[in-house]
Amino acid sequence: MSTTEQAEPAPRRRRGRPGYDQPAILRAAIDLFNRRGYDATSMGDLAKELGLTKPAIYHHVTSKEQLLGLALDDALDELTAVVTEASRERAGVGAYERLREVVRRSVEVLVAHQPSVTLLLRVRGNSEVELAALERRRWLDDRLAALVAEAVAEGALRDNVPPALVSRLLFGMVNSLVEWYRPDGAYDPVMVADAITTVAFDGLAKHEA
Amino acid sequence: MSTTEQAEPAPRRRRGRPGYDQPAILRAAIDLFNRRGYDATSMGDLAKELGLTKPAIYHHVTSKEQLLGLALDDALDELTAVVTEASRERAGVGAYERLREVVRRSVEVLVAHQPSVTLLLRVRGNSEVELAALERRRWLDDRLAALVAEAVAEGALRDNVPPALVSRLLFGMVNSLVEWYRPDGAYDPVMVADAITTVAFDGLAKHEA
Repeated sequence: MSTTEQAEPAPRRRRGRPGYDQPAILRAAIDLFNRRGYDATSMGDLAKELGLTKPAIYHHVTSKEQLLGLALDDALDELTAVVTEASRERAGVGAYERLREVVRRSVEVLVAHQPSVTLLLRVRGNSEVELAALERRRWLDDRLAALVAEAVAEGALRDNVPPALVSRLLFGMVNSLVEWYRPDGAYDPVMVADAITTVAFDGLAKHEA
Repeated sequence: MSTTEQAEPAPRRRRGRPGYDQPAILRAAIDLFNRRGYDATSMGDLAKELGLTKPAIYHHVTSKEQLLGLALDDALDELTAVVTEASRERAGVGAYERLREVVRRSVEVLVAHQPSVTLLLRVRGNSEVELAALERRRWLDDRLAALVAEAVAEGALRDNVPPALVSRLLFGMVNSLVEWYRPDGAYDPVMVADAITTVAFDGLAKHEA
């Protein structure tokens, strides 16, 4: 309750090391989960990584599972928004166009949320939180397969590969980028999205026009 | 040392539960590593899973890391053989043809060795064994990118996507099948290989002939 130096704004009082709020703890947790595996990482490991005490972490989050849930929601909320928008019928916009769009926008989400999407893609269903995430992933897969089927039905895509398989392969290719994409690497997200749509829709082989 | 019932072949004497040799222990270990994560799995967990004592397991393997090494070698030896064969120049067989061949044969390896390839694709480099596996993966990636570049150079593939990026996407699509392929599911390996080569080389969009 000092009254000296009132010209300067009083610094907020903090305990322990300053600078950690819930988003910062979440970022560090996602990074650690991706490096060591979620099941092999303890809240003690996370505290050590951050140079905090465990009570200091529990001031911001209730459990390791809450951190996992927040991370998976971060990835799933973005992907759900993209897929929901692409699934919405719009006058004058065919399914094929919306499919190309969802591929491009998924690449943007994967690049912007690479750590949380990486974690999402490694979820194996070992807890309630993971099972709920797998359920949301299944919904996305089903919507994407339905969109491929629509694009086949409107005559834009070849019909000799099952739509569900096409959807697996297309998004298998998109999802692979969490494994190899580097923000400081040779490719920007636009280049990657262009390459994926070129490979998947136009094919790599040179076609006779 | 009973001499009775000599007409029947004498059963081999075993201690503990019968039926476990090193390959069987390795299969169980790979399955457990894939479900829980390698770092989160202990030799005690593996013993419990198998209904064996830890000493009974150590009769067959020296360490958890040896099991990981054997699993990664199982996947890498097969993939290396496929890529080495595809990289070998042969009279009358162009790079494009060899690239299509390596895609098909990779699908076969992934299906036949799905558990060990799944483990390989999740390796993060947390130990000497994992770093050695990542080094071998890099060699495979480099050879595949070189093969794509050769196919571009011979004029068979479009030249507006960088060969290293094409290789990432192509094998990102192939590798994705460890996540969703089920041996008892709707697709057999030939169908998956056909679909991948169709998508990647010919493209999904209907082309004017």
